Amino acid sequence: MAELDELLCQSARLQIMASLMTLGAEEQVDFTYLRDLLKLTDGNLGAHLLKLEQAEYIVVEKTFVGRKPKTYLTISDKGRRAFKQHVTSLEKILHFKDKK
Amino acid sequence: MAELDELLCQSARLQIMASLMTLGAEEQVDFTYLRDLLKLTDGNLGAHLLKLEQAEYIVVEKTFVGRKPKTYLTISDKGRRAFKQHVTSLEKILHFKDKK
Repeated sequence: MAELDELLCQSARLQIMASLMTLGAEEQVDFTYLRDLLKLTDGNLGAHLLKLEQAEYIVVEKTFVGRKPKTYLTISDKGRRAFKQHVTSLEKILHFKDKK
Repeated sequence: MAELDELLCQSARLQIMASLMTLGAEEQVDFTYLRDLLKLTDGNLGAHLLKLEQAEYIVVEKTFVGRKPKTYLTISDKGRRAFKQHVTSLEKILHFKDKK
């Protein structure tokens, strides 16, 4: 049976990963940009990112721009594979391709 | 944000619901048929069905055919709504429609 990834079964996390999937190989996304895009609080986004980071699905880079702390995010190869596998499983289970 | 239904975030349960969604209004599906279709054990399918029944997403009817116990399953209106909502949320998050 097509297996779903438990970590990607939560709306915010799936949306974070879907957003990061659109990035090119060298691209990063800013914490603040993602927070506003997904309409999440700092704390909420931070908690989801931590889980994704612990699973090595994303890479979180904390740095300073001048005196301002900045957090940049990228998706890892493992994260890309997990996302693709999850979506393929969903399509198999739901037969999206048949319905459209 | 499009919300996912936690109960439908598990492969077997999502597949059970997807199977029951294909039934007409008066149709039922047999426990054994579903078990074989989804390649699950009795215990495993039983546990998932219990969760779906407790959420009132499905109706489980136990009866006897001769001396043989039989279990029939139908999806409830609440179950249909939950499934549709879940799939709509997935499509929104993943922009399936844009990609195809």
